[in-house]
Amino acid sequence: MNIVIIGGVAAGAKAAAKIKRLLPDAKVSIYTDDTHVSYSSCGLPYYIQGNFTDYRMLLVRSVEEFNAAGIDVFLESRVEKILLKQKQILVCNKTEAYLVKYDKLIIATGARAIIPNIHGVKNFDNVYTLRKIEDGIKIREKMLNSKRAVIIGSGYIGLELLEAFVKNGLQVTVIERSSRLISSFDADMSELIRQRLESVDKRNFEFLTGEIVTEILGENRIATSVKTHSGKVFETDMILICAGVTPNSELAKEAGLEIGKSGAIKVNKLMQTSIPDIYACGDCCEEPHIISGKSVWVPLGSTANKEGRCAALNAAGIYSPFEGVLGSSVSRCLNTTMSMTGLNEKQALEAGFTPVSAVVSKTDKVAYMPDVGDITLKVLADKHSGLLLGGQAIGALGADKRINSLATALLAHLTVKEFKHNDLTYSPPYSTTIDPLLDAMSILCSKINKHC
Amino acid sequence: MNIVIIGGVAAGAKAAAKIKRLLPDAKVSIYTDDTHVSYSSCGLPYYIQGNFTDYRMLLVRSVEEFNAAGIDVFLESRVEKILLKQKQILVCNKTEAYLVKYDKLIIATGARAIIPNIHGVKNFDNVYTLRKIEDGIKIREKMLNSKRAVIIGSGYIGLELLEAFVKNGLQVTVIERSSRLISSFDADMSELIRQRLESVDKRNFEFLTGEIVTEILGENRIATSVKTHSGKVFETDMILICAGVTPNSELAKEAGLEIGKSGAIKVNKLMQTSIPDIYACGDCCEEPHIISGKSVWVPLGSTANKEGRCAALNAAGIYSPFEGVLGSSVSRCLNTTMSMTGLNEKQALEAGFTPVSAVVSKTDKVAYMPDVGDITLKVLADKHSGLLLGGQAIGALGADKRINSLATALLAHLTVKEFKHNDLTYSPPYSTTIDPLLDAMSILCSKINKHC
Repeated sequence: MNIVIIGGVAAGAKAAAKIKRLLPDAKVSIYTDDTHVSYSSCGLPYYIQGNFTDYRMLLVRSVEEFNAAGIDVFLESRVEKILLKQKQILVCNKTEAYLVKYDKLIIATGARAIIPNIHGVKNFDNVYTLRKIEDGIKIREKMLNSKRAVIIGSGYIGLELLEAFVKNGLQVTVIERSSRLISSFDADMSELIRQRLESVDKRNFEFLTGEIVTEILGENRIATSVKTHSGKVFETDMILICAGVTPNSELAKEAGLEIGKSGAIKVNKLMQTSIPDIYACGDCCEEPHIISGKSVWVPLGSTANKEGRCAALNAAGIYSPFEGVLGSSVSRCLNTTMSMTGLNEKQALEAGFTPVSAVVSKTDKVAYMPDVGDITLKVLADKHSGLLLGGQAIGALGADKRINSLATALLAHLTVKEFKHNDLTYSPPYSTTIDPLLDAMSILCSKINKHC
Repeated sequence: MNIVIIGGVAAGAKAAAKIKRLLPDAKVSIYTDDTHVSYSSCGLPYYIQGNFTDYRMLLVRSVEEFNAAGIDVFLESRVEKILLKQKQILVCNKTEAYLVKYDKLIIATGARAIIPNIHGVKNFDNVYTLRKIEDGIKIREKMLNSKRAVIIGSGYIGLELLEAFVKNGLQVTVIERSSRLISSFDADMSELIRQRLESVDKRNFEFLTGEIVTEILGENRIATSVKTHSGKVFETDMILICAGVTPNSELAKEAGLEIGKSGAIKVNKLMQTSIPDIYACGDCCEEPHIISGKSVWVPLGSTANKEGRCAALNAAGIYSPFEGVLGSSVSRCLNTTMSMTGLNEKQALEAGFTPVSAVVSKTDKVAYMPDVGDITLKVLADKHSGLLLGGQAIGALGADKRINSLATALLAHLTVKEFKHNDLTYSPPYSTTIDPLLDAMSILCSKINKHC
């Protein structure tokens, strides 16, 4: 049995390790165009920040460890083509092109940064995206010799880099084309995130929303400023493109595998693509949403790991359906925790629900405790059925605690009425007597009273 | 409508406030033998520690606030008797005894510290229990002038006081009659708690397990040492009795209300006692356990609040069943978080389950993060059905996050197989890529494989 895996960051690395354990006699090989395999790309902002200085801390399994486990790893080896009929892939490295046979193929090509249509965006060496280890190394090096940075985009990665740069003393401008920051959150929560961040230390950074960067200016491959559609110009030593990601699904598409509406590879619950013996997992493929039931594309490291494991199990012949995602996530920027799960308001409407919401602002522990912080929690439920749909929490550490409890409730398809009986832990250093989640349920109950 | 509430710390205070809002025209009165009403007794260890210095921070609602809401509060007014036929209570204060009529009676008499059978235990002024605000004030005053303390008992309150005393520079001896600390945890987790605490700072405190204090020695009402059954003697400046609590159910029992096996007042889901128009809530009554279905007695502040609210709703004629408890709790001692929910091994066996367990020790966030800690998590499930039964977590902040997710799963009666698909949040400062909870589910799956 010849098992070939394309890509080896999270899903691919996990799939390779798992399938080799399941089928010790199989030949398992990873082909990747990357210079590294099996690493924590989510940790790159913390490497850049200087929370640790050796980037090798990010490596989960080294090539040597894979080899010791009997797995071959081919770095800087780009798969250019999948030949379905022949069950072969075409691999190109620096010196040669060659064909490799497979019995089972697992595609884990991940996602890449979106490069917006900005004049000059490709002309400069100090314009960065952050996906790979080399990106992180280059950005950290440059940051240590910079005074100003412009970040284009205000999603999780943009805000994590804002923290990294501010903590390293840079003056930072975040430019967001949308009218608000981090638009995966509902508008009211987005606004609270902005207020909270701006209240921390407004001297070191500024947010510009509703501004589109149209041009990057500079010379000798060194960008020195960006210009926006309204004519504003910002001088800078480095520019970070954090405008979102797009799935690396071209290889699959070109081979004729079915692609979903999101642009990511379509798979069934067994992580099988539309072609027998070809599986996909991680940031390159879609997944079912547990609440909406629809196919969604939510590229996250935790999901990639689970899908990699699941693809390996199914490819090895062990029935192991992947039940889907809730889109649960958490990120930190300058002591603000931002976390969410399930559907936001827009997604809930699109999925055919009638969302009602409760927003609770409360201390994260009893107010007399010395290190008290605050949390704003928003919970959404369907007005007709009382079904919990999703939630968002921002504020102190502990915001994510509430979101994980809510995620578990979403997994179980609980209603507001059922959740309000939840027996959550309480002690003054950990929570208020009535947890914000339970307050939110009380408010929701009063909005959908026939079910409460 | 004349509504009388006996007791006013958590459940009673909540019930009074709620029922007055529901029935603005009703006469609502609280009778309590306490000197204060509506306060956070869970916060007393932090007041003693000095996290804040004004005990009034512990007050949730003052007498004046109750009065302003139209609620009468009678402090230091002990209810000596309930006259069922006459629907009256007999109240005694410092100067007089009098009768009060009721239409609805809500009993919220709480619990009191157990005083073990120790020779001399009542002879000294520096032997304390901790339940009320005056207790806290006295203990803090004495602590500030003490060098040594003996704590008898190692439950949550004993360990919270250990933290308070150690942080104030005292040399502390904790003496526990059982063979291990904090026996609400399973033996393996108890042992880990002990190891973890002892690894912090062994110079300032010691644990003695399997030792029974038989005598307190001293003179002129000042205790100076304790003696154990094995003949050990410990000199000390103050002694704390933290040997558990017992429900204040005598008043109810004497009136003929049904009392449960635990010794606490029996109530139905509407918080009604065996006598019409008499409700009970909080630490004085039993509650159903969501997993075992049995009546249990789990005296906790969070539950007291919910039951107080529920008793008020039902007494006001609004059908509002209380669905029960999971026994979820959390406590901190010297940077160790201890948290649990659901059934422990012993309780699971008693409830007729066949518990299997998974224990996972893991970092609380990705290991390269600067403030990484560790967590040990134990999850129990039924071998036959795969039903999740309970769990315990100890270690860094974030242990309780896992327990709250698990509590939500218990509320929803999820199986291991269902939980293993949970989409929990991940980011390096908050969790490992695979959360310890999901690791525990994988291990449990392999132990009950027909369901996984």
